[in-house]
Amino acid sequence: MKTLRLGILGYGTVGQGIVALLQKNQLSWQDKTGCNVVVTAIAKRNWDGIDKPVGIDCINDATAIVNRDDVDVVLELIGGEEAAYELILRAIENNKHVVTANKALIASKGREIFARAAEKGVQVAFEASVAGGIPIIKSLKEGLIANEINSVAGIINGTSNYILTAMRNEGRAFGEVLKEAQDLGYAESDPTFDVEGIDAAHKLTILASIAYGVALDLDKVEIEGISHIAPQDVRYAETLGYRIKHLGVALRRPEGIEIRVHPTLVPETALISKVDGVMNAVRVFGNAVGETLFYGAGAGSLPTASAVMADVLGLVTNLTAGHVSPLGYANNSNHSTRVLPVAEHQSANYLRFSVEDKPGVLADVTRIFANQSISIEALLQQKESDNAVYVPIVIVTPVVNEADLQTAITQIAQLDAVQGDVHRIRVEKF
Amino acid sequence: MKTLRLGILGYGTVGQGIVALLQKNQLSWQDKTGCNVVVTAIAKRNWDGIDKPVGIDCINDATAIVNRDDVDVVLELIGGEEAAYELILRAIENNKHVVTANKALIASKGREIFARAAEKGVQVAFEASVAGGIPIIKSLKEGLIANEINSVAGIINGTSNYILTAMRNEGRAFGEVLKEAQDLGYAESDPTFDVEGIDAAHKLTILASIAYGVALDLDKVEIEGISHIAPQDVRYAETLGYRIKHLGVALRRPEGIEIRVHPTLVPETALISKVDGVMNAVRVFGNAVGETLFYGAGAGSLPTASAVMADVLGLVTNLTAGHVSPLGYANNSNHSTRVLPVAEHQSANYLRFSVEDKPGVLADVTRIFANQSISIEALLQQKESDNAVYVPIVIVTPVVNEADLQTAITQIAQLDAVQGDVHRIRVEKF
Repeated sequence: MKTLRLGILGYGTVGQGIVALLQKNQLSWQDKTGCNVVVTAIAKRNWDGIDKPVGIDCINDATAIVNRDDVDVVLELIGGEEAAYELILRAIENNKHVVTANKALIASKGREIFARAAEKGVQVAFEASVAGGIPIIKSLKEGLIANEINSVAGIINGTSNYILTAMRNEGRAFGEVLKEAQDLGYAESDPTFDVEGIDAAHKLTILASIAYGVALDLDKVEIEGISHIAPQDVRYAETLGYRIKHLGVALRRPEGIEIRVHPTLVPETALISKVDGVMNAVRVFGNAVGETLFYGAGAGSLPTASAVMADVLGLVTNLTAGHVSPLGYANNSNHSTRVLPVAEHQSANYLRFSVEDKPGVLADVTRIFANQSISIEALLQQKESDNAVYVPIVIVTPVVNEADLQTAITQIAQLDAVQGDVHRIRVEKF
Repeated sequence: MKTLRLGILGYGTVGQGIVALLQKNQLSWQDKTGCNVVVTAIAKRNWDGIDKPVGIDCINDATAIVNRDDVDVVLELIGGEEAAYELILRAIENNKHVVTANKALIASKGREIFARAAEKGVQVAFEASVAGGIPIIKSLKEGLIANEINSVAGIINGTSNYILTAMRNEGRAFGEVLKEAQDLGYAESDPTFDVEGIDAAHKLTILASIAYGVALDLDKVEIEGISHIAPQDVRYAETLGYRIKHLGVALRRPEGIEIRVHPTLVPETALISKVDGVMNAVRVFGNAVGETLFYGAGAGSLPTASAVMADVLGLVTNLTAGHVSPLGYANNSNHSTRVLPVAEHQSANYLRFSVEDKPGVLADVTRIFANQSISIEALLQQKESDNAVYVPIVIVTPVVNEADLQTAITQIAQLDAVQGDVHRIRVEKF
């Protein structure tokens, strides 16, 4: 099996997520790509108090990583602009592919980086730089490639969305919620980058360039933060049928492209208005596909690692087969995963049936459930009119075995007091 | 510029969408891929009453297309299983790549097709076979490749979702809504395929195979339709805090994979419960990324064409550069698209300011808007207490020029009766 050797610059949240993910998912990556991914070395300035991952060369000097012969791909996860830029250029000079999560660097120096990479014939990938685990760059660049894009509008900063969500749900002021978010670790001690829209502007710069082919240029983004939003704005917006979201918007008009980050009233009927807390979502409107929305975690150790490793594994398939195998698994034959027959399925359930309105019926019904060890999570019994002979009963169960549930249903249907069928609908508690 | 020549089998809704899209977006496809995509020939058994597209060889014999030397990629859009299978195999034998929207065929004969394609070194792509314009196959196979998938749950049949949405919104019975959907053309005269879950099962078979590496096998899917859902189920579900959606669910348990299509109670707090009408959405939960959702049009001429052409343009980039260019445009230099300065932006707006509670103030305010030709879409004036001296006024404008709006804001702020700043938040009417 071919091996792809990674060198990682930085071992913070994301780097640790990648090592954790490698341990969990390495075998499925082999199944999918036919290639073994290993981490050769990680550079971190100071390892004090950090558990060094076993079997990986843990060093202090980032430059040593980009110069090593036993590294095929460099993962730049140190952030910041100057040092990261120098390291990435050096990696490219050394004919290494680069994967980065560094939105500020791509937004400001992407042009120079991509040009040098093209000259050297290596690839630079940056899915993790926008909206964390959501594969929005791939979706926009490849999935929706056949479209001319009319607009992109995204909740692309989790901190701002967390604050606006709490302001709405709890009727509280910006400053109060920000302080709480800082205490909980959802906001930095200097929150400017997030709540004043600078982080979102970096991401939007990248999305706008992909959507419209315009140059990466942070200076072309109109930027407004959320710190001036007052509780009464949230309330009035609600009265008018809107929610306030901090959006990055890039839209095409006949005259040109508008690129702007600002708090926005969004109709409460729009799906994006329901995206709450630290979650991210990007709405893309294309001239063929119409409206789409891509939703997921915009930050965090494993979600960001998911995006970084998607780039790495994408490199693998590009470099080996030239494309992904049709159903996504290069070694399908290795798979012994069993598909379960219906009798072994499990689910929560909604049951509805009609019973005679007389004493003891509910006791009979609940005894049947008890005998199958099925507890009852909710029960509705609502007489529909005073002189109705039959009363509908609705029961919600927790997740149970299908076979046990079917036994219970059969026994309930056989009770004298039950009229007609027992109607069952599954429940999924997303 | 390199040219890629398409031969299209079938000229129904999707085929016509592709030709329409080619006319609209061909230049942007050249910018993105550095390659010119042309349609050489289209086969349709009977062209009576159909406008033949200009400059394309419109013929009757599908077999002639898969045998032509001037066709590089065959687009199979005739549907059905037997004839489509023979034509695709013949195209593969002739070393042509194949793009298809045929979910039934991929679900039943995908294995044979992919095996033969691998032997011949050609590619078979089928993004349009699941969830129309949503790039869910690419997202699952590539965007989320680094994850082991815990569950996939999708609204993947627009007809069923349209019916369930109308049953809920209008409190009507299944049969009644179905009849209306048939009259409106949203449901077939024989609706079995859609409302009994067979179409969804074909799509879920494909998604499950990609998510878990299990073999394509329609027989392993437990299938239940929505025709037995009664109005009182919709009502009781609502009382319990749920919506009923027709879902395709494929989930991993330690024992194996469950694959099932059935009506499902979904918590009304879950994003997927808000997906209404004919729209589709697929929720994917991965062991790294956590929860994601992909939303868009599941059918229709241009949305399906969007997915078919994404496959075609993906082939182009695989065959030429081996990968997509970093920001999605091969010929970025051709782009003269202008990014607009903020003074030229346009948006709808929410304005809030406080005025003295005395006669004539509102007349002064509204005259300022009239002078800038800005109409007022909504106005809220709510005294917060009886003895308050100042009254907050909230105004929502339609889409206006930023420069005009700023003039109006400046003039309002200068009115004697106005106290403090004029607060402005943009409005987007998604």
